[in-house]
Amino acid sequence: MSAPILAVIGGGQLARMMQEEASALGIHLRTLVETPDGSAAQVTVDAPVGGADDADAVRALVTGAAALTFEHEHQDSALLTQLQAEGVPVRPAPEALLLARDKLAMRRAVDAAGLPQPAWAEIAGNAQEMRAQIGAFAADHGWPVVLKTPRGGYDGHGVLMVDSATALDDGEAATWLEATAAARAGHATNGTGGGGSLGGGAVTSLLVEAAVPFTRELAVLLARRPSGQIAVWPVIESVQSDGICVETVAPAPGLDPAAARQAEHIGRTIAERADVTGVLAVELFAVEAPEDTRLYINELAMRPHNSGHWTQDGALTSQFAQHLRAVLDLPLGATTPTAPTTVMVNYLGGDSLPPADVLARALECEPRAHIHLYGKQWRPGRKLGHVNLTTSATDPAGIGAVRERARAVVAILRGEA
Amino acid sequence: MSAPILAVIGGGQLARMMQEEASALGIHLRTLVETPDGSAAQVTVDAPVGGADDADAVRALVTGAAALTFEHEHQDSALLTQLQAEGVPVRPAPEALLLARDKLAMRRAVDAAGLPQPAWAEIAGNAQEMRAQIGAFAADHGWPVVLKTPRGGYDGHGVLMVDSATALDDGEAATWLEATAAARAGHATNGTGGGGSLGGGAVTSLLVEAAVPFTRELAVLLARRPSGQIAVWPVIESVQSDGICVETVAPAPGLDPAAARQAEHIGRTIAERADVTGVLAVELFAVEAPEDTRLYINELAMRPHNSGHWTQDGALTSQFAQHLRAVLDLPLGATTPTAPTTVMVNYLGGDSLPPADVLARALECEPRAHIHLYGKQWRPGRKLGHVNLTTSATDPAGIGAVRERARAVVAILRGEA
Repeated sequence: MSAPILAVIGGGQLARMMQEEASALGIHLRTLVETPDGSAAQVTVDAPVGGADDADAVRALVTGAAALTFEHEHQDSALLTQLQAEGVPVRPAPEALLLARDKLAMRRAVDAAGLPQPAWAEIAGNAQEMRAQIGAFAADHGWPVVLKTPRGGYDGHGVLMVDSATALDDGEAATWLEATAAARAGHATNGTGGGGSLGGGAVTSLLVEAAVPFTRELAVLLARRPSGQIAVWPVIESVQSDGICVETVAPAPGLDPAAARQAEHIGRTIAERADVTGVLAVELFAVEAPEDTRLYINELAMRPHNSGHWTQDGALTSQFAQHLRAVLDLPLGATTPTAPTTVMVNYLGGDSLPPADVLARALECEPRAHIHLYGKQWRPGRKLGHVNLTTSATDPAGIGAVRERARAVVAILRGEA
Repeated sequence: MSAPILAVIGGGQLARMMQEEASALGIHLRTLVETPDGSAAQVTVDAPVGGADDADAVRALVTGAAALTFEHEHQDSALLTQLQAEGVPVRPAPEALLLARDKLAMRRAVDAAGLPQPAWAEIAGNAQEMRAQIGAFAADHGWPVVLKTPRGGYDGHGVLMVDSATALDDGEAATWLEATAAARAGHATNGTGGGGSLGGGAVTSLLVEAAVPFTRELAVLLARRPSGQIAVWPVIESVQSDGICVETVAPAPGLDPAAARQAEHIGRTIAERADVTGVLAVELFAVEAPEDTRLYINELAMRPHNSGHWTQDGALTSQFAQHLRAVLDLPLGATTPTAPTTVMVNYLGGDSLPPADVLARALECEPRAHIHLYGKQWRPGRKLGHVNLTTSATDPAGIGAVRERARAVVAILRGEA
């Protein structure tokens, strides 16, 4: 049995954690990394250095590979389409990946699928025209509204809550409007995809969305093979801070079973309509009332996702192993939880470099904790690792206590305890 | 937080599985491998090539490392002792490692500790003298007896069941006696540790043991830190075939709790008396009667061990993570099982090269299975991987059914189903 080669673009922690599972499954990852000493490069023997938009590097990467996959969506669509035309199995395919890369494309596709999402509109023109369009949208849907750049956003970047019309006149909102208008003008003039400073590719319009008064955020995670098999993990609760996922609880405690079923239906529908391969994460807003839970699709990701890190230690098959299996069209593993509840807390860099002994102290603090470190240099706010902690508790007090334990481990890692 | 460097000697599957856990914990493994494309080298970025007895290679390996550890016991004792004298943290220390490398030293130490083991004797002299000594031993303890080479054995190599005095006169037993006598004669003459073809180092005597009429084999696995902390996993049942562990069931079903406590006591006593650091596996014979279970120490290993592979998917902390933590003197993780029962079945190479699609078929056969492959070339009987399968069953029928499922997965991998 010779090891299949899987080509991966991206050298961050998601590719690193794929490598841990690839080793167990006897799969050879060949990973295109941004730097030779980055997170994935530290643990991947076959790790050429190059950018996702470096056609020569990507072509070398896929030579002899069974498939090509990614740890992020910010890929060169034209290059992927060309490779696909040449017979390289690109998974997910560029047409699917577009829905995770372009929020306008995603909103249109979700509407076409008849799935629930916030009211939204595309905003374009000069800055004055865009202000007027946002005002008209808010007149219909109320303030605040959410402004988003269609492309290039991540972890809260590219998302702006706007409270009122006057808030559009200065600050970040005004900067966005001016930059987008300028990019559109430049685009119209020279016909290139030049496009502003707001993210990858041409940003010549903005997305405005109604702010959903959610009671909490959820995520549904699944994997799909080219042959159509789908495996769905239980719906989880995601706690965000400043647009970054900071904690998850799996399964989402006390979730209305009908809502869980609807979330799974949403995930399956998107995966099947868009022909997604690999892991798909659908982030959802939930508005929960005693008799009724309403879900709204917030964002998509087509790769292992922070909302699925709990599966490493809390489910029979981790999202990283499942992604490898899915994109190689291997049969999927069981997604059954191995504990009644699994809590995940992200370890983001604190305000100062943590002392050298924090790992020892964190391990000592909670012997049941699964600490995952990414091998990344400290920087305030940077994702440096996460902690998974399983528990038999399913009640709010019990789960709350375990969340506190996991936070305590992270506080030590941050050098704050 | 910069990654501590841990030096490891040995490039097989145990070092490979250490690397999977090192990645998660942000620990940098520098692994001395026998070949640049072997099991561990495939997944370890920092993997110099060299032998365990290559002093220059080992010295380069430990430069800047926080500690030195091993994936097998066949180390150069003099070199390790020298490194230790120079201040290198060698874990386990050569004095402890001797008990896992030399069965005579182990038998003496176990007697000194007052722990239970089979009757045994050291056999030395010319072939005729050794025959007489074995005959005398058998007169006291009965036939059959077990002949063992004190050093260099593994997976059934170096162990010979002898049914009668006449069986000593030809075949493998006769070869052993002649070779050992010749080695002793050479040793006495030239004063070097030359020593025969029966294993590493000078084999100038043999070990004879009473054959224990065991009802089953057990193993107790623990890890110990230099600072003294010990964490013990539940006692497991081990099924051997031709001296090779082929299956384990964890915890050992229906084991007398007093026997489980005694097994743990045996493990702790050996670990503490010998100042073991890292993972220690103690293989035990159990003679179970309705009112009484008797345990006898069979063998020791001081490293992650086949009897602990189940911990990867069936315990809160895997033996590979725990070994890294222990030898780096980091606090140990919880050893609590995550499922009522976990079955492990070894995947040994079958009689012919398996077809290319066996991984896909094996994954399809049992979506709950955790398949671990070692990246090794097929060879009949070679350890190529293992399969872990958890179950809520604790009754014999339920566990038996799960063992059948795991065997079915392995049969596919072997190309036999």
